[in-house]
Amino acid sequence: MTNHDNLTRNGLDLAQMQQTIGAIQQDPGIALFEFRARNQWINGGENRSTIKDFYGAKAEDNSRDKAFEFTNGEPPVLLGNNEGANPVEFLLHALAGCVTTTTVLHATARGIKIHKLATELKGKIDVQGLLAMDDRVPVGYESIQIRMHIEADCSDEELDDLISFARDHSPVCNTVCRPVPVSVERVRRVVAA
Amino acid sequence: MTNHDNLTRNGLDLAQMQQTIGAIQQDPGIALFEFRARNQWINGGENRSTIKDFYGAKAEDNSRDKAFEFTNGEPPVLLGNNEGANPVEFLLHALAGCVTTTTVLHATARGIKIHKLATELKGKIDVQGLLAMDDRVPVGYESIQIRMHIEADCSDEELDDLISFARDHSPVCNTVCRPVPVSVERVRRVVAA
Repeated sequence: MTNHDNLTRNGLDLAQMQQTIGAIQQDPGIALFEFRARNQWINGGENRSTIKDFYGAKAEDNSRDKAFEFTNGEPPVLLGNNEGANPVEFLLHALAGCVTTTTVLHATARGIKIHKLATELKGKIDVQGLLAMDDRVPVGYESIQIRMHIEADCSDEELDDLISFARDHSPVCNTVCRPVPVSVERVRRVVAA
Repeated sequence: MTNHDNLTRNGLDLAQMQQTIGAIQQDPGIALFEFRARNQWINGGENRSTIKDFYGAKAEDNSRDKAFEFTNGEPPVLLGNNEGANPVEFLLHALAGCVTTTTVLHATARGIKIHKLATELKGKIDVQGLLAMDDRVPVGYESIQIRMHIEADCSDEELDDLISFARDHSPVCNTVCRPVPVSVERVRRVVAA
């Protein structure tokens, strides 16, 4: 495979993609991942996550020298001081990134070169759900709209098919549009922070 | 209400909380929010979001002088260079923050003082879904587990009730555990990035 090492499309290494697919075909256990985050409450609507380790391809990952850190906050109208974006905004960031990366991945697999890709997301929430003021109001986003600006070297029909395929194969999009069980377990002994 | 201005619990202003609830009771339209993100693909699995404006409490928010920026990336085993945390990890950050803030909010409403609150999240994904290798594999997270370390000035029973209530009223948690429609629309004219 060394003769393909430097071939990339849309910034993805074609030989590495082929190798990954081939390895999973041989052993589907390689495809099982466990992602993790640790979060520490600071005060009010402010809290901070650290993200570093994960399990995947049958091993603990050790590629990151230091953890990523992200701060959730709230704007004043939601009782905060803009210490960070708020959690429902971070969800939009995750969704935008996942739909984008999934589009790029499958474009690459199809031989489509992407020149530009940008998205705008909007999601509606009635905070009466959060505040437990009205049981008839959905607690989460009512719906999320993604507008995608994309330029690629293929026909409009191929683009529409690619986007639809990416929507159906984006992990974050499918975590949102399908029901995914979330359990919250209280740990009896508090570990020192 | 000026005599309550400095009363806070868990970092939340009690008078402002009461005012907000009262205002929404008078006019539920105040509770309608629209959150937004804009994302720009960079290369491969790298893309960047900007988050600044939103609509809520019947007005466009203008409390943020500059936008928050977050970069999605992928680790080498997922064809990237750790340019940032990846989208499914950002989803865990959003979920951790939302469950935490919802717990703090309802603790405050119940008169419970929280001393410490930390969470650990784990979520399992089989990337055969993303790669479209096996239609029987779920594309999103199979499930997400949250372990919550919490110390507060209340009984274990009150804590368990609080945590269960927070899970049921967290917007991100309910966006994940219930199906939320996501639409992707291709914009025909590309706007310059």
